Amino acid sequence: MPSPQRKTPSVHDLPVDPRVEALVNEVIGRVADKWTMILIEVLIEHGELRFTRLGELAGGISQKMLTQTLRQMERDGLVIRTIHPVIPPRVEYRLTDLGLSLGEAFCGVWLWAEKNLQAIEDARVAFDIRAKA
Amino acid sequence: MPSPQRKTPSVHDLPVDPRVEALVNEVIGRVADKWTMILIEVLIEHGELRFTRLGELAGGISQKMLTQTLRQMERDGLVIRTIHPVIPPRVEYRLTDLGLSLGEAFCGVWLWAEKNLQAIEDARVAFDIRAKA
Repeated sequence: MPSPQRKTPSVHDLPVDPRVEALVNEVIGRVADKWTMILIEVLIEHGELRFTRLGELAGGISQKMLTQTLRQMERDGLVIRTIHPVIPPRVEYRLTDLGLSLGEAFCGVWLWAEKNLQAIEDARVAFDIRAKA
Repeated sequence: MPSPQRKTPSVHDLPVDPRVEALVNEVIGRVADKWTMILIEVLIEHGELRFTRLGELAGGISQKMLTQTLRQMERDGLVIRTIHPVIPPRVEYRLTDLGLSLGEAFCGVWLWAEKNLQAIEDARVAFDIRAKA
């Protein structure tokens, strides 16, 4: 359906197989996730990291959520988990090329957030005033 | 800390006030959300929509989650909720310019997902085989 509001490029501009669209939505659901994005950002910044250090740098993530997110990222091919054969074994995580490319694709959203912080804060203040009225 | 793995542009390349960084992380946490991204995509595609229709087009969202996500998006200044004074009142949602610009910023992630579907599926199959072994 053509829409007068359509101003931006969209994946829907492409002819899309509904099966492909459902898969894309599922993948977006997986990767449009706060912790996935923050872990990718930390790994881009710091390279290979141990579990504990990764958790510290991500800030505020629970151990359970860190385990879960890293496992899903490993399954999706975004990170590689390496067990270094030392005693005690040292387990480290780093991004794959696929993970790096997701970080690049998401970079626009970080920049958007940085640019529009004030607009978002202003909107929140205005909303909260209206909600109280 | 300089890192040999740094290959991509990153917000961390800019000198960042830690207060600003914390705010950006908080905003990313809010907008790097599956339903926010899917609702933005639907609203870019279809323009102004009623609550029920928006839910249908988003596919698989619960009424509670739709209410919650739309309220947060309204508070963040991403959508405008208009109550049309008819009987019964008609409530419609459309994107603000800020919401549209987030959709544009996120577009790279949709394209990434579309491009890398097969790589992700392959990674999952390989992971599941390793996990069973």
